[in-house]
Amino acid sequence: MTTVLKLGGSVVTAKDEPETVDADALAAAADALADATDASNDADVVLVHGGGSFGHPHAAEHGVSPTAGTHDAGAVREIHGAMRRLNERVCAALGERGVPAVPHHPHSAGYVDGDETLALPPDGVGAKLDEGFLPVLHGDVVTHVGAGATVVSGDDLVVTLARGLDADRVGVCSTVPGVLDDGGDVIPEITAYADVADVLGGSDSTDVTGGMAGKVRALLALDAPVSLFGPDALAAFLAGDEPGTLVD
Amino acid sequence: MTTVLKLGGSVVTAKDEPETVDADALAAAADALADATDASNDADVVLVHGGGSFGHPHAAEHGVSPTAGTHDAGAVREIHGAMRRLNERVCAALGERGVPAVPHHPHSAGYVDGDETLALPPDGVGAKLDEGFLPVLHGDVVTHVGAGATVVSGDDLVVTLARGLDADRVGVCSTVPGVLDDGGDVIPEITAYADVADVLGGSDSTDVTGGMAGKVRALLALDAPVSLFGPDALAAFLAGDEPGTLVD
Repeated sequence: MTTVLKLGGSVVTAKDEPETVDADALAAAADALADATDASNDADVVLVHGGGSFGHPHAAEHGVSPTAGTHDAGAVREIHGAMRRLNERVCAALGERGVPAVPHHPHSAGYVDGDETLALPPDGVGAKLDEGFLPVLHGDVVTHVGAGATVVSGDDLVVTLARGLDADRVGVCSTVPGVLDDGGDVIPEITAYADVADVLGGSDSTDVTGGMAGKVRALLALDAPVSLFGPDALAAFLAGDEPGTLVD
Repeated sequence: MTTVLKLGGSVVTAKDEPETVDADALAAAADALADATDASNDADVVLVHGGGSFGHPHAAEHGVSPTAGTHDAGAVREIHGAMRRLNERVCAALGERGVPAVPHHPHSAGYVDGDETLALPPDGVGAKLDEGFLPVLHGDVVTHVGAGATVVSGDDLVVTLARGLDADRVGVCSTVPGVLDDGGDVIPEITAYADVADVLGGSDSTDVTGGMAGKVRALLALDAPVSLFGPDALAAFLAGDEPGTLVD
């Protein structure tokens, strides 16, 4: 049973304060992971976290996004360095609780190829799982053929990893409790984009890494069931429940 | 023309002082690279540096070597973290001089597979070169199938990269001016191990990442000519000369 879990950048950082971890939220998430895994990650969890207040400000400053690249190596080092600092904090919080977290940096592990596809070989992540480590990936700046380097979002990584590892379950934990309908209620299940086109069609956020509409489309294309939920439901998801919105 | 260049750990760090860069030596090496490359790395140089006083003490403390692995994620984070700190210093020194250096961390880029072979896809490094970046790799701790995680040396990386990238030239810059004969003189050329077996046979150093004998054997197996030389000859090597000992 392989689970790919994403923690949104806004879950683990104070999104409006540069390079600031939300210590309480990170501790709560790390506690939930420590309860659900063991010292050799027998649950085969792969964690991906977003950039929050670490990656986004640097990316915005240099005008780098998933579609706008840079050939400025200094910009690459700065964005990647900020993401590594957040990744170190996340890994340390997990490590303190006995979770065998080790970093897996997308900047080194992959790149966007000439077909605009994220090439990130799953065997490196799989080898970490097989050896009992819990790999922790993150939104990052990666080489992009023809464009220098662009941002790869945590959501892109989740999709690539779920497919590459043939994951059994996917969880996307953000600050909202699921996909919301017009009345603000959580939609319990989405099986086709047409079901939610009215609600999501015009609601793309300004997040450079894409809004809910694109996210739902990409997640629907996966074989694995995907749960979208808020931080309070993380423990339930890791215990096997399907909180929030189920996309399958 | 692709060149794989290794800077030994003892060239860029003060080997006996924990986590201490040899600032003058690093500056001199960075100057030489800045003179030989340009802002889009048209010379297609890939740099690999060793661990020196950053990686080795942590690896030794945890009993991790190329053959002795660990399943302790904390040890992995500690060794890798120290190597990243050195890598940041090397990339920064290059960046200050206009060299488009970006990190490429072996811990995320590769692993040792079930055949005891370092699997490190060359296309990720090649994509960085193609986009005008100068990738900077380093000795690191990597996942090792069946053994947890082990040390991969800078020398191992040089061999894997030279082969994977079909490099035209390889340079190995250490604190000695080349392979020395019994009288302490530099041997100008080695074309077969038998030529130097008497000199190297009994001289394996205690370096956990292997002595000169194993290094020469591995370099002889490469298609590309390899120059082994000291720091003073780095500029000459980058200018196209074959200083020190030529292994081909």
